[in-house]
Amino acid sequence: MAHYNLAFLGFGNVGRALAQLLESKRAELRERYGLEFAFTGAASRRLGWHANPAGFGAAELLDGGLDTRPRLSRKPVTDLGALSEWLRAARADVLFENTSMNPHTGQPAIDYIRTALEAGVHVVTANKGPLVHGFHGLRELARAKGVRFLFEATVMGGAPIFSLFREALPAAKLMRFRGILNSTTNLMLSEMEQGASFEQAVKKAQDLGIAETDPSFDVDGWDATVKVSALATVLMDYPLKPADVGREGIRGLTAESLKAARMMGRPYKLVCQAEKRPDGTVVGSVRPEQVPNDDPLAGCEGATSIILFQMDVIHGLTLSELRPDAVTTAYGPLADLVTIARGV
Amino acid sequence: MAHYNLAFLGFGNVGRALAQLLESKRAELRERYGLEFAFTGAASRRLGWHANPAGFGAAELLDGGLDTRPRLSRKPVTDLGALSEWLRAARADVLFENTSMNPHTGQPAIDYIRTALEAGVHVVTANKGPLVHGFHGLRELARAKGVRFLFEATVMGGAPIFSLFREALPAAKLMRFRGILNSTTNLMLSEMEQGASFEQAVKKAQDLGIAETDPSFDVDGWDATVKVSALATVLMDYPLKPADVGREGIRGLTAESLKAARMMGRPYKLVCQAEKRPDGTVVGSVRPEQVPNDDPLAGCEGATSIILFQMDVIHGLTLSELRPDAVTTAYGPLADLVTIARGV
Repeated sequence: MAHYNLAFLGFGNVGRALAQLLESKRAELRERYGLEFAFTGAASRRLGWHANPAGFGAAELLDGGLDTRPRLSRKPVTDLGALSEWLRAARADVLFENTSMNPHTGQPAIDYIRTALEAGVHVVTANKGPLVHGFHGLRELARAKGVRFLFEATVMGGAPIFSLFREALPAAKLMRFRGILNSTTNLMLSEMEQGASFEQAVKKAQDLGIAETDPSFDVDGWDATVKVSALATVLMDYPLKPADVGREGIRGLTAESLKAARMMGRPYKLVCQAEKRPDGTVVGSVRPEQVPNDDPLAGCEGATSIILFQMDVIHGLTLSELRPDAVTTAYGPLADLVTIARGV
Repeated sequence: MAHYNLAFLGFGNVGRALAQLLESKRAELRERYGLEFAFTGAASRRLGWHANPAGFGAAELLDGGLDTRPRLSRKPVTDLGALSEWLRAARADVLFENTSMNPHTGQPAIDYIRTALEAGVHVVTANKGPLVHGFHGLRELARAKGVRFLFEATVMGGAPIFSLFREALPAAKLMRFRGILNSTTNLMLSEMEQGASFEQAVKKAQDLGIAETDPSFDVDGWDATVKVSALATVLMDYPLKPADVGREGIRGLTAESLKAARMMGRPYKLVCQAEKRPDGTVVGSVRPEQVPNDDPLAGCEGATSIILFQMDVIHGLTLSELRPDAVTTAYGPLADLVTIARGV
């Protein structure tokens, strides 16, 4: 049996759903993988720093018990010294880093992750920022410290894209990928084809809980761009920065043009793609395109996402995830924890 | 560096494509996985038994060199004593078992595989028969002997279905799957929708090299049935035998009914499915069904295959493989070899 103390940095919807899923899978993880765990740390802007090496109960963690508990430190949750102190106090083996993303620099999450790795703590993140701006350095640091840096939830939630290539597609060279990776805009395009205005479509996505209050990060293609960058960085081993991905959002599309395109059998989709060139560089783009009806992307509606991989050994492998929910997204970090425990 | 002696039992199209792919990936496998290998055994009905512990050259193996080489033994390739002798003479570490399938008993391949596992030899098979009729016993034997029994190529060629669940989807419970797993009938249905007769559609599949001279194994749903059985056995850990899968082939469908169904937006597909019941049993079927146009199965044309998985943690994960070729199918056993070398 291996026992892991788990610490959560950032404890919003993703962190809470993960703690709930872990709790519901406790017996299964023990039986199937000899994996036991305790929740020994939780920290967020709202909660402050909390650590208990004996483990918080799931009820205490999830039902507001931390609100009235004395804090470990009064320092802000951005303080790296306090982070080190907290990891030590929690005797953390694994840090779940779920702070909010900065798409332009990846900071301060890169510093958080570096601090944990330096302390010999495994890191699992759902944050794309550190991946696109710090992947190669963080990977090297993790190797040097004999711990793991994993990030399955960053692209397509629970669909195991990164472990698919890492574990299940050895000796396959990825030449090109193409897909729909932002569910907010894909849902909006579906809505607008059926007559909704841009504003109504934004509202629908917000009501479903998949769009932020400020939708521009999705609508202008930034989220999709960061995902293209993350996939190119990890799967093609090429540091393609978000700013270097050609980017065009969906603001230029009207309900009328979308309806007409669909009726002509060539619907618009916000297509994400990247391709490895013969010189080894990778070029990527995110832009609205009309795709023919028999293209698998044409049938990808609403919050569903899809990606098609072209490799040297498999010419077209498509992976699609139907309308993920909170459990699906929490499954990525859980799978990463099992990967750590299995030592593969 | 780990060195593996590889022996091929059955050396038809699949075995030859595998040897070619291995040869072309030799440098990459050494660099990425520290994996070195030699071709030390080849045996088939036509070639007889051949072993060379120093390794056959790729040219000798692939360009008819074995035809004129003296045989290790005159015994038939079905003789288990000769098989043991051959494995010893080849100093085999891994057996690639690619003999022809018996869907009703899995024999004699089960005996071949058992003989190799007993001798401490890893086994990689592309043969569904032993999987559906001998999986649990062979898995236990492999564990007891400290070797692996792997079979990635048996369903959907190079698409890594089995390693996906084994390595990339830990702690996910498969509740249901649904897909199109037989490319011959799927291609035939596509052809007949466009006006081809049953006979013309068979001929087209044969010309493309995906249908056998006797097409009844595909047309009557047997191949699909065996695949449903294989997936239920391994992924749902339930020994669903091919004879227990409800089976109906495509002989009852005419070009006219197919055309009409497609025009009405509900095309016919030979749908493979299985579901875990609350009591833990699994019920499976293969039968033609009309699927709505917005079902991912509706858009799966020609030799492309597709499968949709419903798990407790991911509600819909779809995997699709576009028109596999010989390299794609050979990639499954190559990935299995890497799995053996990585020891995961």
